[in-house]
Amino acid sequence: MTRAAITAVGRYLPPDRLTNKDLESMVDTTDEWIRTRTGIQERRILRDRGKASAFMGTEAGRQALKKRDMDPADLDVIIVATVTPDMFFPSNACQVQAALGATRAWGFDLSAACSGFVFGLCTAASLIESGRYRSVLLIGSDKMSSITDYTDRNTCVLFGDAAAAVLLEPDDSGHGLLDHVLRCDGEGWEALCMLGGGSLRPPSHETLAKKMHFLHQDGRTVYRFAVSAFADVAEEVMMRNGLTSEDVRYFVPHQANRRIIDAAAQRMGLGADQVMVNIHRYGNTTNATIPLCLCDWESELQKGDNIVLAAFGGGYTWGAGYLKWAYDTPAVRPQGAKPALEQKAARLAVNTI
Amino acid sequence: MTRAAITAVGRYLPPDRLTNKDLESMVDTTDEWIRTRTGIQERRILRDRGKASAFMGTEAGRQALKKRDMDPADLDVIIVATVTPDMFFPSNACQVQAALGATRAWGFDLSAACSGFVFGLCTAASLIESGRYRSVLLIGSDKMSSITDYTDRNTCVLFGDAAAAVLLEPDDSGHGLLDHVLRCDGEGWEALCMLGGGSLRPPSHETLAKKMHFLHQDGRTVYRFAVSAFADVAEEVMMRNGLTSEDVRYFVPHQANRRIIDAAAQRMGLGADQVMVNIHRYGNTTNATIPLCLCDWESELQKGDNIVLAAFGGGYTWGAGYLKWAYDTPAVRPQGAKPALEQKAARLAVNTI
Repeated sequence: MTRAAITAVGRYLPPDRLTNKDLESMVDTTDEWIRTRTGIQERRILRDRGKASAFMGTEAGRQALKKRDMDPADLDVIIVATVTPDMFFPSNACQVQAALGATRAWGFDLSAACSGFVFGLCTAASLIESGRYRSVLLIGSDKMSSITDYTDRNTCVLFGDAAAAVLLEPDDSGHGLLDHVLRCDGEGWEALCMLGGGSLRPPSHETLAKKMHFLHQDGRTVYRFAVSAFADVAEEVMMRNGLTSEDVRYFVPHQANRRIIDAAAQRMGLGADQVMVNIHRYGNTTNATIPLCLCDWESELQKGDNIVLAAFGGGYTWGAGYLKWAYDTPAVRPQGAKPALEQKAARLAVNTI
Repeated sequence: MTRAAITAVGRYLPPDRLTNKDLESMVDTTDEWIRTRTGIQERRILRDRGKASAFMGTEAGRQALKKRDMDPADLDVIIVATVTPDMFFPSNACQVQAALGATRAWGFDLSAACSGFVFGLCTAASLIESGRYRSVLLIGSDKMSSITDYTDRNTCVLFGDAAAAVLLEPDDSGHGLLDHVLRCDGEGWEALCMLGGGSLRPPSHETLAKKMHFLHQDGRTVYRFAVSAFADVAEEVMMRNGLTSEDVRYFVPHQANRRIIDAAAQRMGLGADQVMVNIHRYGNTTNATIPLCLCDWESELQKGDNIVLAAFGGGYTWGAGYLKWAYDTPAVRPQGAKPALEQKAARLAVNTI
């Protein structure tokens, strides 16, 4: 049976950093509070007002295609998972298509909050499994700073801007996305939402005054939901595929909160060297977190590694996927990728939280 | 090979009508001008400010499930194609999931402007063709009145509010979606867009003052693009499948402009009795147009009918699909469905344009 395998990854990180120290001067918070509660030390912010999620997604996609040495004109489909598209329409996918010169590709934006990348991965995989398409570029891109209230200390410390992308191609050798478990529960919508800006509350002076165009989160409620939901689906996908914790080379969790990640990893029986964590450097980049992890760890991944991805987010939405990694890292590292040693140092540093 | 077949359809039409006569008192236009240039006589408007696209989508989805006598808890996936979601997040799909009680379903919103339904159909079909899912509810729902500037006579006459849905299930008897041709060209984005409200131009007093939260369309440019793009993909899908114009029982075009539909039908060599047209009653309902046609014509469709669907929209996006209809109309017609005679009368009326 043909599966969809990730054959390249790419990322874009805005150059500007917003550190906990910076936030101390903006809201009533401290570096120590943020690190202890969330694990975050800094995040990237796209300060250029003329650029947003389509730009970042294009750059991440370009890097992935370049690593695979694929001509953009050979690309079949572009899916952009985002909650912060440049515009409601046209889609980011169209803008990426034009910017990359992906002349044959069709595509769309996919909206499923922080689970968008995992939902998109399973959707992209189906397009390949159907036999109709041979290359899908899946991008997670969010300019969270565009919907973050930097006077709200509860949310503004959490989010960052970034994009990351994976290229999916058919694989007949047992690698690729082997299984997934995806869920929704719309009853939980109020805990994590953006009330204004859609068709229910179109932008008005009133919605602006009420700050309805910012992300709203009831942190405690989301935390309780996330800790169980997240590990539930990850465990379900492991169980369904006969995987013990020892079989899992890496767990790739959505990076929303270090404590949620640790709780899930503990329940799954995983050691620190089995869990990808980069939240300290980027914060929660929504649709970009998981592919950003894959980029940062690419050099350590080996063909055949068992990888479990899991995400949760507004909706509620949550889900997990099991994939067998399909390639060994190329000998030549692309510009901008982080050497393995620095990765290890960063993980050791954050492990002391 | 397993294909995805439409096994039920459903719709929701807001009760309030906005007629050409009404518009004459709102902007400098006439009933005759609107009918001659667009073919539209009236459109539906969802006047209830507490309801938007998720509500309409839920009702359309509920009707489709009811016709098929399917328990919502048996549904696997919900995809909502929309450019006017209630909120950026959570997705409309989550809200529909909760409102229907589709406890097992996951889902997402799909954004591809007026081509969203056709792109969604092919995506939904892939989920079924992959063998992983057995029921996908695909909804097209747009509250276009929420992004329409009712002081702009060029656009406010064109759009209406509605939702319609199709249920997709596996078919191993040669029915269902057999082929499709989908395209994007992001270079054309400026001709049909909504500049404000996304991450590039978040809502502000300035974006409100500049009316950036309304749909903008350069009608002449879109017309030129649409007339050729639309028929190109429809012809390509016919050619690839060895279909002559005589083989096509129905062409189901996106309902944006009667003249664009007629031009495409003529190029395809189709007679008036082969083309579904209901734009006179609903205007352009964006993601709902094509499934709304399928609902209105359901009673005339017979198992085995060759159907070609085609759409175009902002992005640019465009595409066509070829499907073999999978069921004969049930003897009992659902409430609200239109008798065939009235349909014919309406078509004759509009054919005099």
